[in-house]
Amino acid sequence: MTLSILFSDTDANWSTWETPLREALAESGISADLHRSYDTPERVDYVVYAPSSPLQDFSPYTRLKAVLSMWAGVESIQGNQTLTVPLARMVDPGLTEGMVEYVTGHILRYHLGIDRHITSNDRIWRPDVAPPLARNRRVSILGLGSLGMACANAAKGLGFDVAGWSRTPKTIDAFKTFSGKGGLVEILKRADILVLLLPLTDETEDLINRETLSLLPNDAVLINPGRGHLIVDEDLLDALEHNLAHATLDVFRTEPLPSDHPFWDHPRITVTPHIAAETRPATAARVIAQNIKRAENGQELLHLVDRQAGY
Amino acid sequence: MTLSILFSDTDANWSTWETPLREALAESGISADLHRSYDTPERVDYVVYAPSSPLQDFSPYTRLKAVLSMWAGVESIQGNQTLTVPLARMVDPGLTEGMVEYVTGHILRYHLGIDRHITSNDRIWRPDVAPPLARNRRVSILGLGSLGMACANAAKGLGFDVAGWSRTPKTIDAFKTFSGKGGLVEILKRADILVLLLPLTDETEDLINRETLSLLPNDAVLINPGRGHLIVDEDLLDALEHNLAHATLDVFRTEPLPSDHPFWDHPRITVTPHIAAETRPATAARVIAQNIKRAENGQELLHLVDRQAGY
Repeated sequence: MTLSILFSDTDANWSTWETPLREALAESGISADLHRSYDTPERVDYVVYAPSSPLQDFSPYTRLKAVLSMWAGVESIQGNQTLTVPLARMVDPGLTEGMVEYVTGHILRYHLGIDRHITSNDRIWRPDVAPPLARNRRVSILGLGSLGMACANAAKGLGFDVAGWSRTPKTIDAFKTFSGKGGLVEILKRADILVLLLPLTDETEDLINRETLSLLPNDAVLINPGRGHLIVDEDLLDALEHNLAHATLDVFRTEPLPSDHPFWDHPRITVTPHIAAETRPATAARVIAQNIKRAENGQELLHLVDRQAGY
Repeated sequence: MTLSILFSDTDANWSTWETPLREALAESGISADLHRSYDTPERVDYVVYAPSSPLQDFSPYTRLKAVLSMWAGVESIQGNQTLTVPLARMVDPGLTEGMVEYVTGHILRYHLGIDRHITSNDRIWRPDVAPPLARNRRVSILGLGSLGMACANAAKGLGFDVAGWSRTPKTIDAFKTFSGKGGLVEILKRADILVLLLPLTDETEDLINRETLSLLPNDAVLINPGRGHLIVDEDLLDALEHNLAHATLDVFRTEPLPSDHPFWDHPRITVTPHIAAETRPATAARVIAQNIKRAENGQELLHLVDRQAGY
């Protein structure tokens, strides 16, 4: 049987994804018609989906078996009432690797104080007191999904004193864990370096605000490659006048970050243009093909979204 | 029996080392008189030694059993003809950890292109093409002693495509190895990121010169936390006009780096003030105490210097 698969994203992304998708489907032994559009939505079996795409009403897709997101973040689609079939998030091994590289790179940058060596130009040799070793630097990671876990393990592997926080309790041998509201207070108090890798939900929106930021130790730094809406922008700017020493932000409430936004040339903020986690079509297409095969075999999808929890 | 131990270094370092040394000796069950000087050199059993200290003539120390260097680099003392007893280098676990943190931090900084995000301030959002993953970035490490091995393993752990070079062949499962003159050509040709962790010997002095630098691929970068004399300074400056994109240097032919040296404000050189590897007295003192105990028990010293090879 030949499956009808709709690719729902921009033309630019179609040109990047078409070949890897066709190759991954063929590798998995799936016979498929893969198209940019269908005149007959009622014949489509699967949608390979970018949440930003124009397709927002799934009701004409009466034969649909599942929607396979190309994005890790599905908050804009998971509440869609017309979407009644299983929805899978993207957990791309290439994306995870890229995220780990970004997070460990910026953790080490802060740990070593690299910025001052890049930007100083006064020709003065300043023999430093030895910085603390990584084992004496406390890294707190909020969010222990696949990305948070991978980053926590990498930081632990480099020797950092790592702790992780999740909504519900988790027991992990390699590092300390905290959960719930009380645990959030505890993990923020020991965050020399705070990393945000939470999904965006009703509970996590605005989680990093005046009150929670005030719990950080003096000279704490923050890395946000998660979601822009986790942070109350004005409260972050205010904390930078107090206990927060620096922030590196990869995601924003509005993207691209507007050119008049105060984050741009704040002396203690580094802006990166949503580069921490890019899906690599070669690895991600294999995940999609694998999920279509699972669905055809009656197995549960990998990375199935819990529509109640929101991720 | 109470051993007579001479601490031969500056007053400032004595104040840092005295307590950790006394604690480590006590922990090891060694009864010792530890002093800054002895009126009777012929009664000294061991010298805890900084190669920069004024003590350069060991001939009056007729009872000496061993010299325990507090430094990893012993090139200034290992050829000393008055030193006829075993000489141990310092291999401090704290120093190794600090070096791994420095090297992985700067490798990731180059890999991610962090500098442009720190220094740009034009308020322009530039969505980047996804950078290569670490697995597609070739890191070449020259020197597979304890520091080189630790850094190579850490870079491999982060996913980089690592290779290491040593004078004599080594077989290591975790990454590719090269050796000898032919191997040097090969490893330089695949060095997207080149890390120098060689000891300074007659064979390694000036090893990074016009000829060897010309073998690097275009846009290669170099990290030197090893020894300043490995590099011919003028040839490095010249390579920065050609295939070499950037260099981060922690060690120099003259330290402190003279204020009129062209490295200081070269736009493609980052100078760090010999901070990559600092010995931590707490961990290093335990290594010295352990070695004194080994010597007293008739065992070979750990990290014994091969006076012929020079390290």
